[in-house]
Amino acid sequence: MQPTTPLGALRALMQTRGLDGLLVPRADAHQSEDCAPHDNKLAWLTGFTGSAGLALVLADRALLFVDGRYQVQVQHEVDTRVFEIHHLHNEPVTQWIAEHLAPGARIGFEPLLMVNSQYEALCASRCEPVALDSDPFDAVWQDRPAAPCGAITAMPLELSGESSADKRQRVAQALRDAAVDYLAITLPDNIAWLLNVRGSDVAMSPVPHSFLLIDQQGDTEWFVAPEKLASLDPAAIAGVMISPPQAFVGRVAERAAGRVVALDADFSPVALRFAVEAAGGTVRWQSDPVTWMKALKNPVELEGYRASHREDGAAWVNFLAWLQREVPRREAAGDPITELEAQEKQREFRQQRASFIEPSFTTISAAGSNAAMCHYHSSPETNRPITRGEFYLNDSGGQYLNGTTDATRTLSFGPLDAPRRLHYTAVLKGFLALITLPFPNGTQGHQLDAVARRPLWELGLDFDHGTGHGVGHRMLIHELPQRIAKKVNPWPLLPGSIMTIEPGYYLAEQYGIRIENQVEVVKAAPGFSRFSTLTLIPIDLSQVEIGLLSEQEKVWLDDYHQQVRETLSPLVDEDARAWLFAATASLRVQTEA
Amino acid sequence: MQPTTPLGALRALMQTRGLDGLLVPRADAHQSEDCAPHDNKLAWLTGFTGSAGLALVLADRALLFVDGRYQVQVQHEVDTRVFEIHHLHNEPVTQWIAEHLAPGARIGFEPLLMVNSQYEALCASRCEPVALDSDPFDAVWQDRPAAPCGAITAMPLELSGESSADKRQRVAQALRDAAVDYLAITLPDNIAWLLNVRGSDVAMSPVPHSFLLIDQQGDTEWFVAPEKLASLDPAAIAGVMISPPQAFVGRVAERAAGRVVALDADFSPVALRFAVEAAGGTVRWQSDPVTWMKALKNPVELEGYRASHREDGAAWVNFLAWLQREVPRREAAGDPITELEAQEKQREFRQQRASFIEPSFTTISAAGSNAAMCHYHSSPETNRPITRGEFYLNDSGGQYLNGTTDATRTLSFGPLDAPRRLHYTAVLKGFLALITLPFPNGTQGHQLDAVARRPLWELGLDFDHGTGHGVGHRMLIHELPQRIAKKVNPWPLLPGSIMTIEPGYYLAEQYGIRIENQVEVVKAAPGFSRFSTLTLIPIDLSQVEIGLLSEQEKVWLDDYHQQVRETLSPLVDEDARAWLFAATASLRVQTEA
Repeated sequence: MQPTTPLGALRALMQTRGLDGLLVPRADAHQSEDCAPHDNKLAWLTGFTGSAGLALVLADRALLFVDGRYQVQVQHEVDTRVFEIHHLHNEPVTQWIAEHLAPGARIGFEPLLMVNSQYEALCASRCEPVALDSDPFDAVWQDRPAAPCGAITAMPLELSGESSADKRQRVAQALRDAAVDYLAITLPDNIAWLLNVRGSDVAMSPVPHSFLLIDQQGDTEWFVAPEKLASLDPAAIAGVMISPPQAFVGRVAERAAGRVVALDADFSPVALRFAVEAAGGTVRWQSDPVTWMKALKNPVELEGYRASHREDGAAWVNFLAWLQREVPRREAAGDPITELEAQEKQREFRQQRASFIEPSFTTISAAGSNAAMCHYHSSPETNRPITRGEFYLNDSGGQYLNGTTDATRTLSFGPLDAPRRLHYTAVLKGFLALITLPFPNGTQGHQLDAVARRPLWELGLDFDHGTGHGVGHRMLIHELPQRIAKKVNPWPLLPGSIMTIEPGYYLAEQYGIRIENQVEVVKAAPGFSRFSTLTLIPIDLSQVEIGLLSEQEKVWLDDYHQQVRETLSPLVDEDARAWLFAATASLRVQTEA
Repeated sequence: MQPTTPLGALRALMQTRGLDGLLVPRADAHQSEDCAPHDNKLAWLTGFTGSAGLALVLADRALLFVDGRYQVQVQHEVDTRVFEIHHLHNEPVTQWIAEHLAPGARIGFEPLLMVNSQYEALCASRCEPVALDSDPFDAVWQDRPAAPCGAITAMPLELSGESSADKRQRVAQALRDAAVDYLAITLPDNIAWLLNVRGSDVAMSPVPHSFLLIDQQGDTEWFVAPEKLASLDPAAIAGVMISPPQAFVGRVAERAAGRVVALDADFSPVALRFAVEAAGGTVRWQSDPVTWMKALKNPVELEGYRASHREDGAAWVNFLAWLQREVPRREAAGDPITELEAQEKQREFRQQRASFIEPSFTTISAAGSNAAMCHYHSSPETNRPITRGEFYLNDSGGQYLNGTTDATRTLSFGPLDAPRRLHYTAVLKGFLALITLPFPNGTQGHQLDAVARRPLWELGLDFDHGTGHGVGHRMLIHELPQRIAKKVNPWPLLPGSIMTIEPGYYLAEQYGIRIENQVEVVKAAPGFSRFSTLTLIPIDLSQVEIGLLSEQEKVWLDDYHQQVRETLSPLVDEDARAWLFAATASLRVQTEA
C-alpha cells in the first residue's frame, strides 16, 4: 500500500533505512531566516508555517517543537491529533530523546541542515545519529517545489565601494594571519558581499543560495547553479572558478587533507566538519571573517544607505499625507481604509521611486489590537479598518538599488485616551534616550539596551523583543552580527555599523506601539561613537504628553524634524508638502505659543 | 655557597627538583583578595606589593607579570635589572612560556595556589607542569611570617537570621538535587556564612582561612586550625567534625572514589581536581551553591545592614561637620588638616559607635590630585593638605556587629572652577540615574552599567572601574557574585542583593570625584525590582550646577536628604546637628527662593 500522507511517506523511508526516528528541521543549508518553499520540509510534513521549528518522526509518534511565539499559531495550522506539540527551547528535542528513547536509537538527520552545536547536542542525547547521505525527501515529496533558481546580478563598484578582488585579498590576508588554509562559506549574504553580487532565490532576501571556498592566495571557487548566472556579465566574477553546488562538500573533503579549514562555529553545516575530518583535515571553528568585514560599511555603502533613505522617506511622507487626509474622510463616509489597502497604497508610493526594487520584508500594517502582536501580518481574515480612535502601526521598508530601509511609525488620526498617550510617550522617550546616546568605542549592544527601556521600566512595563538589529546593504533586513538586546552580544558597535533602534510597547488584545529609525554609527568625541539617523520620516507627536519631554528631547525632535523637512520637501509630491511642513513644525515654538 | 637572595634560593630549589622554571603567584589557597604576609611569596621574592601578579623564575631569567594598574608602582618597588616586567593580561605567562620555552620544559607550581583554568592554560602552553607536593617555600624563606591564626567568633542567630544547621540542610538539598555527593568549599566567606562564624586571619577581612567538606546528608567536616577555635563556644558548631587543614586534600581523595565532588569552577585549587581524579571520582565544575545562597540576604541580615548604616551615617555626619568647620579655619591658620589627620579623626568618630568593630577596608582619604588615583592610600610621603580650593574624596566604611558599610563622598569647602563643577554634576547625575532605576527581575549588572555613565559619556568622558559591587554581611567588602560593570556578569540583581553604586571621574594629576552609596535591591512594581539606599550621608550639593538637574533628580535628592536628616538627627553629636540640617536642606525650596 502506498503511503498517502507525508508522515506515512517518511515512516516508510525510515523503515527502508533502518531508522527509529527522523529529524525534520525548518532549515536550509544556509541557515536562512527565510526558507524557500523547496526547503520547507517542515511545512510540507506538518502544515506549520512559522519561521522556526523542528519535527521528530518516530514509528508510532510524531512530535513538533515550536517556540513561544508560535504556540497559538501551531494549534491552527497543525493536526494535533497527529503531531504532539512541544516547546522548542524549554524542552529541546535532544532532551526529549535522552529522556524517552532507548540509548542507541537510530535517529536520521541531514548533515547539510544541521549545525555543529545541534549535532553535538544530538550526540549527547545518547542516541545514534545517522547522517543521511543525500536529500531523502526528493524521493517521497510529491509535487515538491523546485529549488529556487533566482537570477544573480552584479553589485557594481560604484555601489559596493570595493572590488570583489580586493575583498578576496582581504580575506586571504585574514586566513594567512590566522594560519588557516581554507575558508568554507555557506552564508548567502557573506558570499554576496564577497563577490559583489545579489541574488533572488527568496523574495525580499536578495542573496543567492550558493557555497564558496577561498584559500590563502584568495583563489576562489563558487559553487552555484550556472542557470542563475545567465544574466551576469562574466567580467563581474573574473578569476572566480564556477562549480555546481553539489560539488561543494566533496571539494572541501578533497582540499582538506592535512590542511586547516575555517568553518563558522554557528552556521556551518556539520556536513563540512564530517568532510574535513574524514579527509584528515583540521576544523578551525570561528566566526566567518567575512561577517565582520561586511558589518563595517565603507563610505560608498554608507552614502548609498543615506540616498535610499531619502527616497524611502519621500515615499513615506507621500503615504502619511495620504493617510492623514483619507483616514478621517473615509471613516466618516462609512468606508474606512483598511490595513491591506494602506499597505498596498504604501507600496505604490514606494514604486514611484526610481531606485526602489521590492519591499525589504513583509510589511506590518496593523490597526488597533492587531498591533499588539509584534510580528502581525495582515490578511483578508484579519484585515481591520484604520480609524480615528486607535493607533495604526506601520513597520516596513524597501530594497533600493543602493541600500535597504526599515522603519516603524505608530500613527493616530484623532485624540486617544490617557494610557495610550502615556505609553506612546514612554516609547518615544526610550527611542530618544538611545538615539541621542554617545558611547565609548567598542561598546556592545547589550550594554545600551536598558537605555531604551527605562521610561517603560519606570511605569513597570517592558517589551519582549530586541531593541535593534543590523541591516544589510541592499541585503538582508536582519544582518548579523551586532544586536542591541538584553541578551549578550559580543560584537562592538563601531563607526560604519548600521543598526535599527526600535523600542515598543504591546498591550495584549488592545494596542501596539513601536517607533523605529535606522541609524549609522559615526564618530563622536575622541574615543566615542554615536548614532546618526538614516531614517527620515516625521514622528507623530500628536499623542505625546509634551510636559513629560525634557528640553534636550524637544531639541532633538525639532532638529530631526527640521532635517526631515529640509531634506524631503524637494522630493515629495506637491500635495504632501503642506502636510510635511505641519508634521515637522517646531515643538518648542508650538509649546511656547 | 649558600644563596643569599630569595631568587637565588628558589633557583637552588629548582635545581634540586629538576625544574626549568617555577611559578610564584600572589595567591593563597582561598584565592583571597587580600593576602596574609605568610602567603605573599611574590612580595618576598620580588618586593612587589600590589594585589595581583605572578612571577616566573627560570635558571637565567626572572619575569614578573603585573596588570595595567601596577605598571608604575612596580618600577618603584622591584629591581628591574633582576626582574623583567611583563603585562599580566596582554601577555599572559602561559603565552610567554609557549613562545619562549622549549616544549616539555618542566615548570613547577603549587596546586593549592592555582585554579583549574590557570592549570589548563599552563598545559596548553606545551610545557610539562610539575605539581609540587608540599609548600617548598617553608624550607627557603627565612623569617617567613607565621600562618595567620586569627580567633574565630560566632555570628549568633539573632544577627545571622538562619541557623548553621538549617543552612547546611539547604546545601545538602542542593547537592541531592544536583546529584552531587560532596561539595568541597575553599572560599572563606562561604564557610563563614555556612557555619555562622567570623574570622580574623587578615585585617578587615573577617573570615577564617579554612576548608570544608559537606555531603548530601549535610554531614560537615571543617578543616581549621584548632587554635583559632579557642574562644568559640563549641555549641555554636555542634555536629560539625573538626579536622586540621592539612588533612583536607587527603580527605577529599578518600571520599571521592566512585563519587561526584562539586568544585567551584573559578576558585577551587586544582589540587582538589587532582585528588578527586586520582581517587577515581568525578569532578562537577560549578559555582559553589553557597555563593548564591549567601548573596540573597535574609530579613535579619537586611535589618542588620540598615542598622549599621544608621550608625555609620551618624559617624560620617559628625566627621563631615567637623571637617566643614575645621578645614577653612585650619587652612586660614596656616595649619591645614591633612589626609591622614582626617582619616584618623574619622576613625575616632566611628569608634564612638557601640557596634563598630574595625574599618571594612583601607580608607581612601585623598585631597586634590591624589584622588585622581582611584585606589590611592595616603602615607606620610603622599599626605596632602585638605584645602578650600580642591575636592577632598573620602571612600571608607566600617565593620559593625550586624553589617558592613562602604560609601564615598567628594567634598568641597569653597567655590571650585567650572570644569570641576561640571564633572561633579555629571557624576552625581550618573549616580542618580542608576539609584532611581527600576528594572525587571532578573536583570544583570552589565545591563545597567551604562545608565550611570551616560552623563559622563555626553561630555566625552568615562571612568575606568566598575560601577558597583556586592558587599558581605559583616564580611568581605567585595562580595561575589554580582557586579555592575561593563564586563558581562551572569548573576541577576534580585531582592535581597546588596550592591554599591559608585560612578566617578578622574582627571590625571588634577582631581578625582566619586559618589558611592550602598543599596539593597527591593521589590518594585510586579515583576520589577529597584534599589533602596542603605547609606545615609548627605551628598555635597555646593558644587552642583543646579540648572542641569531635572525635577525628578531634585525630588530624589530632597527626599533622600529628608530621610538622612530624620534618621540621623537623633543619633549625631549636638554640635553636628546644625550642620546636618543645613547640609540636608531642600534643594527645591532653595531653588525657588
